[in-house]
Amino acid sequence: MLTDLSIRGFIMELASSSPAPGGGSVSALAGANGAALLNMVLNLTLGREKFADVEAELAPLKDKTEALYERLVNLIDIDTEVFNEVMAAFKLPKDTEEQKKERSVKIQEAYKKAADVPLEVAERCLEVLRLCPIIAEKGNPNALSDAGVAAQMAYAGLEGAVMNVKINLSSIKDEEYVAAAREKVAAFLKEGAEIKDRVANYVNERL
Amino acid sequence: MLTDLSIRGFIMELASSSPAPGGGSVSALAGANGAALLNMVLNLTLGREKFADVEAELAPLKDKTEALYERLVNLIDIDTEVFNEVMAAFKLPKDTEEQKKERSVKIQEAYKKAADVPLEVAERCLEVLRLCPIIAEKGNPNALSDAGVAAQMAYAGLEGAVMNVKINLSSIKDEEYVAAAREKVAAFLKEGAEIKDRVANYVNERL
Repeated sequence: MLTDLSIRGFIMELASSSPAPGGGSVSALAGANGAALLNMVLNLTLGREKFADVEAELAPLKDKTEALYERLVNLIDIDTEVFNEVMAAFKLPKDTEEQKKERSVKIQEAYKKAADVPLEVAERCLEVLRLCPIIAEKGNPNALSDAGVAAQMAYAGLEGAVMNVKINLSSIKDEEYVAAAREKVAAFLKEGAEIKDRVANYVNERL
Repeated sequence: MLTDLSIRGFIMELASSSPAPGGGSVSALAGANGAALLNMVLNLTLGREKFADVEAELAPLKDKTEALYERLVNLIDIDTEVFNEVMAAFKLPKDTEEQKKERSVKIQEAYKKAADVPLEVAERCLEVLRLCPIIAEKGNPNALSDAGVAAQMAYAGLEGAVMNVKINLSSIKDEEYVAAAREKVAAFLKEGAEIKDRVANYVNERL
């Protein structure tokens, strides 16, 4: 699995002439980095007397940041798997009319899965972003830049994932599916950009 | 070394209660991902008859993207090392006046190193961004979203690194050093944001 590779090994694999892993897995990794950074800020805040006044508000967020980085790490692998399924569908036989039909159905199914995964990555990145303002504002101020970086990573993951949704949508013939996905990503981007800008302003004003 | 950890292991280490690695190493990783993605797009373009007309223009960029991801991967480790040096300087003895003076000098030196590293990360991320427009526009269009994701990652790495420069500058007493660094990061951010927006528009219009 990709996520068993070392950081160095992942970068080499990414840089190689193989189209997978690509931008989809990288977007999931950015989101995972964001969620893990938020989890670190919580770890540097919770249980310390100095920050006792925010303990009750921040403590319930820790399970959320943990679940988000765990899911996003898995999505690094899943994105590359579904990309490879598209490639595999194109290699199905197309000698008879029946085979052609079957191949076409499989290709469409594979493209939908390949769009669904970055759609989930985008949504998870948005969930990471939604946790950034409160953690930046109430977490340990020594880790303020870490909360700021978390928002940058989650937003880059969101916008990168949306690009990966769109490149797959361009091959999907189911118009209802495409319209619904386009509507979702537009809403994700709008909310995500607002949060990212708000967190960046908050952090930069205080650094 | 951090970069010998698996992706999964790095995320766990990041999420832990140890303040290092933190946002500085994550910013370098984002830049490395951007440079590696550009290198992949070049690998999917160069040497193919279909893209023979851009071969001469794109071929010289490959050494650059390679050098950038190699350096940025090293900077993941270096950022955490210099952060740990700041922590170590604070632990120096301060029993005598001489020790106090010496400790104070060492702390200031360590903070400058801890600012210099994200300053380099920011500059390298900007160098990655500068390569994005031509690779997005002339590289293999099947990898257009990858070039788009590269710009997102490089920009998030740049803005994240700048936050890490600033948090260290706040502890540096050398006003000339601080003023010069602030001027640099402002110029990096301005140029970087322009390129990122330009690439995002180009890619999104075509997806």
